[in-house]
Amino acid sequence: MGADPGWHPDNLGCGVVVYPGTTEQVATVVQLCRRNGVSIVAHGGKTGLVGGGISKPGEIVVSLERMNRIERLDADEQVAVVEAGTALQTLQEAAAIHGLTPGIDLAARGSATIGGMVSTNAGGIMAFRNGVMRHRVMGLEAVLADGSVFSDLTRVVKNSAGYDLKHLFIGAEGTLGIVTRVAVKLEPVMPETATALFGLPSLAAVFALLKQARALGSGELAACEAMWSGFFGFSAANHGWSAPEYRTDNSVNLLLSFAGHGEARISDEIASLYEAMLERFPETEAVLASSLTQRDALWRLREDTEQIYHAYPAAPSYDVSVPLSEAEAYVACLEEGLQAVDPDLKPFIFGHIADGNLHIILNRRGGDLPASTLAAVEAVIYKDIRSLGGSFSAEHGVGSKRIHSLNETADPVKLHWIGQMKRLIDPDNLFNPGKLVLHPGLS
Amino acid sequence: MGADPGWHPDNLGCGVVVYPGTTEQVATVVQLCRRNGVSIVAHGGKTGLVGGGISKPGEIVVSLERMNRIERLDADEQVAVVEAGTALQTLQEAAAIHGLTPGIDLAARGSATIGGMVSTNAGGIMAFRNGVMRHRVMGLEAVLADGSVFSDLTRVVKNSAGYDLKHLFIGAEGTLGIVTRVAVKLEPVMPETATALFGLPSLAAVFALLKQARALGSGELAACEAMWSGFFGFSAANHGWSAPEYRTDNSVNLLLSFAGHGEARISDEIASLYEAMLERFPETEAVLASSLTQRDALWRLREDTEQIYHAYPAAPSYDVSVPLSEAEAYVACLEEGLQAVDPDLKPFIFGHIADGNLHIILNRRGGDLPASTLAAVEAVIYKDIRSLGGSFSAEHGVGSKRIHSLNETADPVKLHWIGQMKRLIDPDNLFNPGKLVLHPGLS
Ligand SMILES: Cc1cc2nc3c(=O)[nH]c(=O)nc-3n(C[C@H](O)[C@H](O)[C@H](O)COP(=O)(O)OP(=O)(O)OC[C@H]3O[C@@H](n4cnc5c(N)ncnc54)[C@H](O)[C@@H]3O)c2cc1C
Ligand SMILES: Cc1cc2nc3c(=O)[nH]c(=O)nc-3n(C[C@H](O)[C@H](O)[C@H](O)COP(=O)(O)OP(=O)(O)OC[C@H]3O[C@@H](n4cnc5c(N)ncnc54)[C@H](O)[C@@H]3O)c2cc1C
Repeated sequence: MGADPGWHPDNLGCGVVVYPGTTEQVATVVQLCRRNGVSIVAHGGKTGLVGGGISKPGEIVVSLERMNRIERLDADEQVAVVEAGTALQTLQEAAAIHGLTPGIDLAARGSATIGGMVSTNAGGIMAFRNGVMRHRVMGLEAVLADGSVFSDLTRVVKNSAGYDLKHLFIGAEGTLGIVTRVAVKLEPVMPETATALFGLPSLAAVFALLKQARALGSGELAACEAMWSGFFGFSAANHGWSAPEYRTDNSVNLLLSFAGHGEARISDEIASLYEAMLERFPETEAVLASSLTQRDALWRLREDTEQIYHAYPAAPSYDVSVPLSEAEAYVACLEEGLQAVDPDLKPFIFGHIADGNLHIILNRRGGDLPASTLAAVEAVIYKDIRSLGGSFSAEHGVGSKRIHSLNETADPVKLHWIGQMKRLIDPDNLFNPGKLVLHPGLS
Repeated sequence: MGADPGWHPDNLGCGVVVYPGTTEQVATVVQLCRRNGVSIVAHGGKTGLVGGGISKPGEIVVSLERMNRIERLDADEQVAVVEAGTALQTLQEAAAIHGLTPGIDLAARGSATIGGMVSTNAGGIMAFRNGVMRHRVMGLEAVLADGSVFSDLTRVVKNSAGYDLKHLFIGAEGTLGIVTRVAVKLEPVMPETATALFGLPSLAAVFALLKQARALGSGELAACEAMWSGFFGFSAANHGWSAPEYRTDNSVNLLLSFAGHGEARISDEIASLYEAMLERFPETEAVLASSLTQRDALWRLREDTEQIYHAYPAAPSYDVSVPLSEAEAYVACLEEGLQAVDPDLKPFIFGHIADGNLHIILNRRGGDLPASTLAAVEAVIYKDIRSLGGSFSAEHGVGSKRIHSLNETADPVKLHWIGQMKRLIDPDNLFNPGKLVLHPGLS
């Protein structure tokens, strides 16, 4: 039970953490807190990136750390039932024994918990195939503000039995209750058999490649991560990565992983893919990983985002998604708009491109940007994001950091009802106050 | 604009139908109705099976029939935006032009609308691969009780922007608002290339076959429908179907469809599948469709359920799902329990077995069963259904027919909050009164 604050320095700001071991103990804690007017911040792996887990004096943290049992893992049924504090990687390893996977993966896998991932509706690398966390949840148990237990642990995909209220808790970031158990759908593991990096002249080329990569005869596309040149150049330099005949200043770099049986055949098909791309986009470059070491080196270029925060500790970061048909225009607009705010603001762009999910980090040295500049930056990044059919928060959530952005970009009718839901389900603002929604009628 | 009542004779009981052409017109109708205290029943294709669309004098029906445009279908993005009255088949045909499919299919495809399917959270044949309607919806627009428009038409799979309230309307059966537009995720079409019928001695054999069929080297499993001997014998006799060396009294019959390229290779693999099954279960029988006519004949055995209602007009029907690990014990218990209620009650059992979704129709001749017998039958069919991890209503919904079953089987905490949601979002009980939930504090 370490006192490691996790990803956000203020996570343990309240100074008090309780570690219940069962749903009943969670319920008891909730009842006690309610009776004494003490607010509760739930903690999973503390890897959340939007300050959803920060706490302040007078509150208490309820950590799910001890509730980390895999209670059931039926290989034929392809469903696992886990306690909310189970780390993603723990579930991945247990499922792998049966040739299965939870179908969702992200770089924080070692710490991020299933309960935290449910609460942020996490996405990650495989969402374009398997959906986001919401699509992996079959059943859910949660403790509500009055200490009652909402118990809907079905293990079936078909369930048309009244309003499916578990979806309220998915993505609620601990503001409506504490998730204690989850039934998670599993998928057959697809062993990763080939990894390639493509250097491409444009997003149009990325989509052309993506389309063909998804329709490969043998291997199936297992991951598809884009890195724009700014981010890629920085990361390659940082890791001292280079490959013969591969420039590090391609407009976009696409990391593709394929899964399936028949490594040689898949490699052949990737070679044909490259030939086909060359015909349409002569600037195309490609590297095929020929060893696990090379593969890991390629993945590190994409997954090691901490390097950015080492170089630019106060770098503002954003996480949007845009429909694929809008992505090219969106990125052009973004780069131009940021230039207009400040010619020195060059964004690092990378992300899960098959979902239209872009992570944007501003490579600003020095301290925090002035509020007016930040506002101008957000005006650029979130411009028309909803009418384009996208989302200002793809997978990281709202937390304490993005409430104003939610308020500025959401449909006002949706916003109204978010407030109403919070007031109905957590009338005393017991759970995670000041996150996701400002409690209407209280604060 | 026919006056066809659709699947339930009382759908047009109110005698008044309005046909708005736009979301704004829907909003106007809602405002008028609210001002005048007139309740609204929304209608899509009127194929719902649980009396969710029935209406009575004093109410009005709002039909989405005219709102049937496909507003957007982006082949690269693999998303369609449709008006709620668009028939499933219309969308299937429009998507097929681009080699795509909405990823969901059911026998009522010609009439069932996307709005109705959203409202019942429809499932169907492909749910074991692609999830149910809830998993196909990316965005949704709905008119609420005050005439305001909830507008969340994102076209991205990743969206962690506050409580995802669209999920309240999915499966709400028209009791919280009128769905007017839907953004639907599309998948690449998998051309059906082989269809086979297996006769098997037990559900254990079914699951053994299913497991292998899902791991075929070439073709992918596209559909997987089980028919128990009672239903199969009835259907085969009715359609005059027979095949050499295939008995019609196998314990369970499994209809498998495979998709993929390389018909000959897939047929070979099915032959090997059969050999492998024979070794473990020597009673296994198999028929491989060798023409489209044969394939259609096999599918008709499964899909023509109207034949049952012709023979047994008052036959009570049920639609449950159970986790695969529980299915064998569940069916044994069911058959035994029904025998104890009445030795003449032999259930027709069939359904989407890869989801654990079983349709159960009682082959009772004559008029309605006495209420006490029906209660005894339900006690058998719904016994422990929730603690087993299943659902008393897999895909048909609750409607007017199954409110008591919802009340008897649901988690009381969930039930409480279903009532609270209805009261919050539709305080005047304007939408579809007497369906899904009895309005707390009103009726
Ligand atoms: C290196 C790195 C890479 C990442 N990559 C991705 C990525 O690819 N995709 C992605 O979606 N996210 C990514 N994330 C962020 C992601 O949100 C988290 O990794 C994860 O979903 C949070 O899980 P956690 O257990 O750490 O939750 P925490 O950080 O502990 O909590 C997150 C939020 O959920 C609440 N919460 C936690 N547990 C519960 C519970 N049991 N009941 C109710 N509320 C609870 C908290 O109060 C908080 O609001 C990344 C993070 C890091 C550090
Ligand atoms: C032969 C046959 C086979 C079937 N097979 C399957 C199957 O395999 N899987 C499955 O899941 N279902 C199946 N069904 C039933 C299924 O529920 C319906 O086919 C479909 O989902 C309902 O669509 P609809 O447009 O006909 O809705 P309707 O019957 O018109 O309405 C159904 C419910 O939704 C509400 N509603 C309709 N439109 C709206 C709207 N726009 N906004 C708000 N509320 C609305 C209605 O008020 C009603 O409560 C089958 C039905 C038949 C007749």
